[in-house]
Amino acid sequence: MKNIGFIGLGAMGTPMARTLLEAGFQLSAYDVVEERVEVLAESGASTAGSPRAAGEDVEALVLMVVNADQVEDALFGEEGAAQALGEGAILIIMGTVGPEAVRGIVGRMEDRGVRVLDAPVSGGVARAVEGNLLIMAGGSHDLFDEAKEILEAMGSNVVLCGESPGDGQSVKLVNQLLCGVHIAAAGEALAYAAALGLDPRAVFETIRHGAANSFMLEDRGERMLSGEFSQVKSALNIFVKDLGLVLEAAGDNGFQSPISSAAWEVFKEGSSLGFGGEDDSGIVRVFGR
Amino acid sequence: MKNIGFIGLGAMGTPMARTLLEAGFQLSAYDVVEERVEVLAESGASTAGSPRAAGEDVEALVLMVVNADQVEDALFGEEGAAQALGEGAILIIMGTVGPEAVRGIVGRMEDRGVRVLDAPVSGGVARAVEGNLLIMAGGSHDLFDEAKEILEAMGSNVVLCGESPGDGQSVKLVNQLLCGVHIAAAGEALAYAAALGLDPRAVFETIRHGAANSFMLEDRGERMLSGEFSQVKSALNIFVKDLGLVLEAAGDNGFQSPISSAAWEVFKEGSSLGFGGEDDSGIVRVFGR
Repeated sequence: MKNIGFIGLGAMGTPMARTLLEAGFQLSAYDVVEERVEVLAESGASTAGSPRAAGEDVEALVLMVVNADQVEDALFGEEGAAQALGEGAILIIMGTVGPEAVRGIVGRMEDRGVRVLDAPVSGGVARAVEGNLLIMAGGSHDLFDEAKEILEAMGSNVVLCGESPGDGQSVKLVNQLLCGVHIAAAGEALAYAAALGLDPRAVFETIRHGAANSFMLEDRGERMLSGEFSQVKSALNIFVKDLGLVLEAAGDNGFQSPISSAAWEVFKEGSSLGFGGEDDSGIVRVFGR
Repeated sequence: MKNIGFIGLGAMGTPMARTLLEAGFQLSAYDVVEERVEVLAESGASTAGSPRAAGEDVEALVLMVVNADQVEDALFGEEGAAQALGEGAILIIMGTVGPEAVRGIVGRMEDRGVRVLDAPVSGGVARAVEGNLLIMAGGSHDLFDEAKEILEAMGSNVVLCGESPGDGQSVKLVNQLLCGVHIAAAGEALAYAAALGLDPRAVFETIRHGAANSFMLEDRGERMLSGEFSQVKSALNIFVKDLGLVLEAAGDNGFQSPISSAAWEVFKEGSSLGFGGEDDSGIVRVFGR
């Protein structure tokens, strides 16, 4: 495979597209923010003026947009990519949009002869830059094998999670359940330490390497203690969305999820306090108010 | 220091006492379960027939009992150790009993010329066996320095968290907040994976090394997937107690703790379902019922 379309050049999408360029793929890139496309063009991408243009003459189209509405727009909007994708092309949905959004697209794309693979990612911007993401794919074995060279340019750990498009999303939701709860718990714990009259940094240093450890405690704890939330590595609103998807899928399956429900409430409160566009480590400010 | 009394030979206390014996201390040991004392005697401890006997002619008395009531009994019951402890002796409270329980004892012990250090531990049985615990101490610098040789026989990471007895307990509560939430979240996530029609073990293997990671996901996740909860490494009821202490101290300080409150409810439900005496990984069975 050689020619790829790429839609969605946010904080994650831009470095992911760049690793594809570095791997030798020809990229036709589109984003609603024109400057992002221009920045990527400096790394060698062709600029597409619309989603439709990004879908023309490509063997695969990568969608790294944020939610189901953006997927719908990018594919089926007035200048949507679906009309441009040729028979046999592969659509790779990499944003975290939930299993239902993926399943709702499969039929319409297959009618056009386009095959759908979902492949959400985990690891954050730093690992996206290194092409070192965890990629959780859902789709047939054959399709996965065909798309593997694309996925392996962006990820070091590329896993086929199930044979239906949407299965990658489901695994990603389990991942996000844990990530969201762990971030909220880290915030609650550090704010609690302060409420008990302890020095939160000293407590953090004491307990971080033991049984209380989590990736998120290590990663977000440092930022929570610094009190600097305007440098956004991952926006708080992302977890308002992702835990919302977690709970939607829970509801669809009659599953009670009290811990992630409590975490979602905290993220929503953070958003309503005006912290939604800042780094998610700012969640610590919701506690002890 | 040479002669130490030791009260409380449970799953943690027994290996902790053994590391003291291995370090060359003379131990006078007591437990309400007589066989536990006899087992430890085989490793070289003297058997004490009562808490009082364990407190006679010792320079320090280690209390590794489970809760505030047991501390009260061991010290001030009919055959309590307080009456035996000589002036200048050190009382080291190592169970997780909460900061208030420790503070409630300090005055009464100081009236007898006994100095109090609190020093709860984290790390579980495996690290207790290796003398490799994290020990969180609260008390004066001088007292900490004096007791250090005892603590360092049991722990590889011995930290003075604050200069008042009870400060170690406070840090331990922050630790337990995270541990309890992480165990409950691991259970919710693996049950959620099953509810979404995924293979929980495959999901676990996929996400365990990434951003979703926690010490507890690694440690308890394996046991949750095995479905074998009768081999008790740490009983579920321990977190009913410890999260209860977390929330009690939160309430005392006017702190809202929604995530740990949700986790506590899950542990209490597990206990009411009859899982309290089994391994805490059995919490996974509470979800998706």
